[in-house]
Amino acid sequence: MNLEKVYDHIDASYEHHVERIREFIRQPTISNTGIGMEKGATLLLSYFEHLGCKKTEIAQTPGWPVVYGYYDAGAKRTLLIYMMYDCMPADEPGWTVKPFDAALVHDYKVGDYPPFKTAMVARGTINTKGPLMAFLNACESIRETNGELPVNLLLVAEGEEEQASRHLPLFLSEHKKELNEADAMFFPSANQSLDGNITITPGTKGIRYWELECSGASWGRGPKEFDIHGSMKVIVDSPVWRMIHALETMTTEDGNRCLIDGWYDNVEPPNEEEREIIAKLAEEYDWGPQKASNSVDRFILDEKTQSRELLTKYFCEPSGINIDGIYGGYTGEGSKTLLPHKVTVKMDVRLVPNQRSSEILPKVRAHLDKHGYSDIRIRDITGGEWARTSINSSLWSSIRETYERFGLKPHIDVRNVGYAPFSLFTNTPLNLPGGFGYGMLGHGTRAHAPNEYFVMEGNGVVKGLRECEKSAAGILCRYATMP
Amino acid sequence: MNLEKVYDHIDASYEHHVERIREFIRQPTISNTGIGMEKGATLLLSYFEHLGCKKTEIAQTPGWPVVYGYYDAGAKRTLLIYMMYDCMPADEPGWTVKPFDAALVHDYKVGDYPPFKTAMVARGTINTKGPLMAFLNACESIRETNGELPVNLLLVAEGEEEQASRHLPLFLSEHKKELNEADAMFFPSANQSLDGNITITPGTKGIRYWELECSGASWGRGPKEFDIHGSMKVIVDSPVWRMIHALETMTTEDGNRCLIDGWYDNVEPPNEEEREIIAKLAEEYDWGPQKASNSVDRFILDEKTQSRELLTKYFCEPSGINIDGIYGGYTGEGSKTLLPHKVTVKMDVRLVPNQRSSEILPKVRAHLDKHGYSDIRIRDITGGEWARTSINSSLWSSIRETYERFGLKPHIDVRNVGYAPFSLFTNTPLNLPGGFGYGMLGHGTRAHAPNEYFVMEGNGVVKGLRECEKSAAGILCRYATMP
Repeated sequence: MNLEKVYDHIDASYEHHVERIREFIRQPTISNTGIGMEKGATLLLSYFEHLGCKKTEIAQTPGWPVVYGYYDAGAKRTLLIYMMYDCMPADEPGWTVKPFDAALVHDYKVGDYPPFKTAMVARGTINTKGPLMAFLNACESIRETNGELPVNLLLVAEGEEEQASRHLPLFLSEHKKELNEADAMFFPSANQSLDGNITITPGTKGIRYWELECSGASWGRGPKEFDIHGSMKVIVDSPVWRMIHALETMTTEDGNRCLIDGWYDNVEPPNEEEREIIAKLAEEYDWGPQKASNSVDRFILDEKTQSRELLTKYFCEPSGINIDGIYGGYTGEGSKTLLPHKVTVKMDVRLVPNQRSSEILPKVRAHLDKHGYSDIRIRDITGGEWARTSINSSLWSSIRETYERFGLKPHIDVRNVGYAPFSLFTNTPLNLPGGFGYGMLGHGTRAHAPNEYFVMEGNGVVKGLRECEKSAAGILCRYATMP
Repeated sequence: MNLEKVYDHIDASYEHHVERIREFIRQPTISNTGIGMEKGATLLLSYFEHLGCKKTEIAQTPGWPVVYGYYDAGAKRTLLIYMMYDCMPADEPGWTVKPFDAALVHDYKVGDYPPFKTAMVARGTINTKGPLMAFLNACESIRETNGELPVNLLLVAEGEEEQASRHLPLFLSEHKKELNEADAMFFPSANQSLDGNITITPGTKGIRYWELECSGASWGRGPKEFDIHGSMKVIVDSPVWRMIHALETMTTEDGNRCLIDGWYDNVEPPNEEEREIIAKLAEEYDWGPQKASNSVDRFILDEKTQSRELLTKYFCEPSGINIDGIYGGYTGEGSKTLLPHKVTVKMDVRLVPNQRSSEILPKVRAHLDKHGYSDIRIRDITGGEWARTSINSSLWSSIRETYERFGLKPHIDVRNVGYAPFSLFTNTPLNLPGGFGYGMLGHGTRAHAPNEYFVMEGNGVVKGLRECEKSAAGILCRYATMP
């Protein structure tokens, strides 16, 4: 396959490719409200058809459908391309353009970094309808110049990524047979950071997210139905105090180690590959951007004297137990006096190998019961498993080699401390032998925030849409021939 | 003085008196927003002038003014009439009439009780512009029929009752000399409950209300400026967990006894009069309405076997320590993951003799410091002292005798477990020798809630405006001649 011809075609098609992205962005696809979801699915299906997919389908689920396409290149290897076509609402304040106009803004400046020549500012640009279309654009250019793609593609675009991928497992299970033709999964995303760096991240943590609720109704003491006058505390029990005492039993006094029985039972120490990554990172890791972006002065461990321990903790430990939010009673200005009838605590934990998200809530339940809080209710919100592949997989090797051809030396992380539903591909239900990979060149950010953007033309260090698409072509081309 | 003639005049003036109340209600006086406050003060001043006050004044304060009037009847005794002309906003949902139309609704039904023939439904009707005008109406009728009032009146109407009477102490101090002419303070309110019962309550508890705030900024650990991604908990400290552990040290595990050093130091046991009241109440007290209105199944003590202990606790103990509200991080639907940078807890305690509201926060501060939480901030919101008079005072005796003339046998409580600024009159700064009293006949409720109402014509058991005004006249008349 002649990559140079593909690159020339991508360069020549820049305006056309930008317009294809804009068309897709201008169709809102907001899964939380339903706005535009059906039209968005139909539009995406038309792109799959235009690419030349032999089979396409809008596969219904109990929620939003999965848009599915099979491109048969007659190739040896098959990649499952995991994509999302939904995005968040754009009703937050702070937008300087209309969120679904797909505005092209020139000399776009972010922070103290050199301005980008052109950025597309709109909801869904970086997360992830922009990179999705960039990937499809790259495929189009390969077909135009080489006649055929170098790998077969199983295109799976869910419409519920912003709803914790709630029906994706169902779709994957039901299509297990045909999807198991894939060797590995690739997720089209643009991964350069603001300073141009790019990172290979061959894992993600898992998550369990739940709520605790203590109420007079379930306790049998305290107000049952509504918040009452604060003066009644003298003779009426308080569900809030009960929750405070229940929570207190869950962590050490510093809040950093969870005391729930068996919490760390299945935490496996980093394996050899991970230890090597950490040892290398410990020598060079710059904690400055982490401090700045999280507005923290210090971490649980000292990053100067305990760099390796801190990195090990960061990548390879569960997050103790986190309180995401707590609320009950009067939360406004001034002095309204109330004895609240209930209090709610939102909690999560991030999971590492070999923890299972299903093991968490039974442990929380047993802990509450053991301490006499059997009335405190647990409301399961969501969960997902960790995923892990090797940086030496054919897919990651193709990605790394591609970065290097563009002059970028990638950093290597152990895993993303956030969650992505990659375990559905690497583990149950699909168990793809080649694992997963992601990350094209290019940059954008402010997902879920005002002025979300995706760089169309960069600033030299940060690449633009052309290089993004070229890297997609490069990855596919190398993967097809990688041993 | 001929009370019969006064009563006849009140009966004959019913329509006119209702219209005077409506006029005052239709002028919004919302201290929290400022809407109508100046016009309301001017209107109230005109009522004082119309009554024949020799001296009237709109006395400026750093907040909303006090409307002040002195009515010199050349009488032996002087009553300070404490009033409020402000009311809450009416922007909450649930109103079935326009809140400032002063609608008269016939056959007005509340719960399972017999309907009232006529109720005025509007913001401020019962709390307390309606009773205020009823009192002034009664005074007008006395003057029309007897030429002169039986007591001198010092009319003090504040415009900041809904703002914790923030400048009332200043006004009272500055006018101490002339206000000290008063023998006692009377607060015009309509005190019958829905079942027609009426209670004499010769005391109020005091209060301290404050906020605790734990933040990364003041702690020096955890996120300083904003809530960060929940996955960072693995290496970043949590101000919320810190607050949980700090709060846990403050009470026994049941949440009912405060463990802060010296918390109960100045709590005095009930005196002889209070013990007698409690002993009598213990035999007859019906906890059913308390359970129903507070939606509780049980109290801290068993009301059947520990009736006297529960009443003693209710009236004569501080409220342990109450959490009015708690909030931090994500409080919406679903699973947004955050590590909150701060958490706020609203707290209050109700105070009894001989506690002082000024003693509370130093004890909270010392407790936090002692346990290593010197970074947790205390934000003082408001405070006020308890007040106490004897049920055998001339004023309460006049009130009780008036109730009995209308066929009502009042219950007697030790004190209101809520707060009212009565200590400003009975203690510092005025120290009125005759204490305070309040409570005319009549009924209304839903202060601060939609469809606040004041009964104009009752249902036999609950009295209407005529009897409300007659009871005011009766109280003044009896107080003038009480030994």
